[in-house]
Amino acid sequence: MRTWEKNIRKVVPYVPGEQPKKAKMIKLNTNENPYPPTPNAKKVLEEFHTEHLKLYPDPKIEDLTRCISKTYGVKENQVFTGIGSDDVLALAFLTFFNSDDPILFPDITYSFYDVWAELYKIKYKTVALTENFTIDPLDYRQKNGGIIFPNPNAPTGVYESLDTIEEILKENPDSVVIVDEAYIDFAGPSALSLVDRYDHLLVVQTFSKSRSMAGVRIGFAIGNEILISYLNDVKYSFNSYTLNELTIRLGIAALEDKNYFEKRVKQLIHTREWTKSRLKELSFSFPDSQGNFIFASHPSKHAKEIVQELKERNIYVRYFDKPRINNYLRITVGTEEEMEEFIDHLKDILK
Amino acid sequence: MRTWEKNIRKVVPYVPGEQPKKAKMIKLNTNENPYPPTPNAKKVLEEFHTEHLKLYPDPKIEDLTRCISKTYGVKENQVFTGIGSDDVLALAFLTFFNSDDPILFPDITYSFYDVWAELYKIKYKTVALTENFTIDPLDYRQKNGGIIFPNPNAPTGVYESLDTIEEILKENPDSVVIVDEAYIDFAGPSALSLVDRYDHLLVVQTFSKSRSMAGVRIGFAIGNEILISYLNDVKYSFNSYTLNELTIRLGIAALEDKNYFEKRVKQLIHTREWTKSRLKELSFSFPDSQGNFIFASHPSKHAKEIVQELKERNIYVRYFDKPRINNYLRITVGTEEEMEEFIDHLKDILK
Repeated sequence: MRTWEKNIRKVVPYVPGEQPKKAKMIKLNTNENPYPPTPNAKKVLEEFHTEHLKLYPDPKIEDLTRCISKTYGVKENQVFTGIGSDDVLALAFLTFFNSDDPILFPDITYSFYDVWAELYKIKYKTVALTENFTIDPLDYRQKNGGIIFPNPNAPTGVYESLDTIEEILKENPDSVVIVDEAYIDFAGPSALSLVDRYDHLLVVQTFSKSRSMAGVRIGFAIGNEILISYLNDVKYSFNSYTLNELTIRLGIAALEDKNYFEKRVKQLIHTREWTKSRLKELSFSFPDSQGNFIFASHPSKHAKEIVQELKERNIYVRYFDKPRINNYLRITVGTEEEMEEFIDHLKDILK
Repeated sequence: MRTWEKNIRKVVPYVPGEQPKKAKMIKLNTNENPYPPTPNAKKVLEEFHTEHLKLYPDPKIEDLTRCISKTYGVKENQVFTGIGSDDVLALAFLTFFNSDDPILFPDITYSFYDVWAELYKIKYKTVALTENFTIDPLDYRQKNGGIIFPNPNAPTGVYESLDTIEEILKENPDSVVIVDEAYIDFAGPSALSLVDRYDHLLVVQTFSKSRSMAGVRIGFAIGNEILISYLNDVKYSFNSYTLNELTIRLGIAALEDKNYFEKRVKQLIHTREWTKSRLKELSFSFPDSQGNFIFASHPSKHAKEIVQELKERNIYVRYFDKPRINNYLRITVGTEEEMEEFIDHLKDILK
């Protein structure tokens, strides 16, 4: 090791799902939406004047923030916008989790949480989910420096009712509680309805899943204006200009095409339920996923083998080699045709 | 203060230059390039398939990284790419500056350095520039946890020779030394030629100035592969997917249009020198700026008043109310026409 290496922050990074670039494949491994974004996206690019690119974009991202605030019926100063929900969450960890007490999150959850905690040297403690992969709010009755969990949870897809969330909020008035709702549009009611009653609640959502814009990178947080103003201070202390003008225009186009959004979400939920039925017929068991993915386990063939055999057929699903979940496949819901083909291959593999 | 506020990171953010949105104005306040980016940018948007936006972009940003590595004659694993050089620098602070000894940077410099240090609770010490706003390498002969300075410096525009930089590198073999070359294309030789000889040197550049892409948000760092690999680990621990596919394509278009780039840089330097002559005629004094801006002071009229009067005429320049520099204007070099108009107004104001 060189002498200058001693002062370097050494971390074990998050490993995103594979992004293979094969022409003919079925990609069910990174929970992307199989449908294209609003057709109006094309118009945005056509009408854009590239001369504008010489100027810095709006640091306050006002146009998009206003559009988000209107869509969700909150005030503009209750909205924070970032480069995907990962950026929003990373900045939220940095802003809100500065206690000597550990922050709490489920033992089975989005694999970025412990990575951010390690990066910023934030103490953390994982709280075991019940046997059915659900959250027991009583487990969150302990001293903590903050709480975060996804709803629906990843990679299980389990959706928790707002009663559960409210119980956690009531028990923890001194902690910032972050509900990471990346998949909420495929599930039940959002915790957004609680934001005005609980000023320590931050709700985070993304354009990457239900709005088919993983490749644009837009995420946002909604909370009371004090939380948002602290988050903005940290953002402006990190990078003043984050979203470029093209990203902002594309995001607005997605929000404005409400019909398209609703139609695609409905279609995807339909395909998810169809896939669940077929998986059940093949003896898979799985929690009742409310995301755009299904977390399934087979009684006789190990997940690791299934993943491998699917890969040989150019079908990619996600596998986590972690305690309690290492016999599960996380299957993103694709188009109807993709899921039919997937199920056919699965039948063949399990024969 | 609410009880949950106690664990929040409280910072005083960086304040970027005003981004007024007036139809008729001369904007010389944020060091943007007055010329549009390569005309090929339009083609990039026209040819882009918006369907791709449903998929996450390449987390490794390989195509753009390869193009940067070819342009600057280094290996691919010597290049790190981020969302503007602010993102690259913020991640570099987090990665490389973890010592108990203070990091060092000039007292007059890019105003983001102390903001990042405060954000990450990094100890820092500013080192006074000489009376002529130059760096004396002897001043950097002291215990430190890292060194950073821009070359040319901001907001003075003073360019330091590679000899000065090499002296600092030789004296500080145990520290990571970051040279922030946002404005280097308007100045002398880059420290990139030193990267292979000094493994503790990181050079940071941007597409925001010389490549007219402030609105796209691309910055990059070049250093030895060990430095770059640590930086990547931290990036992947923060946000896996940063630059979207459109940004990547626009960046490649800018790099590939070498003729356009060189023509515009030459034109801008010519206008800068013309403006310097006119300012001299108006009795302004200024260091010999090598950036796309001029840092000028008038013997009889205070900078604050000039800024105000220019603003009333819809001309924006930057003013810093800070010790040693509070009687200076930072004037971005615009088009020839803009600078002629600017000089005319200045004459009128000084009458």
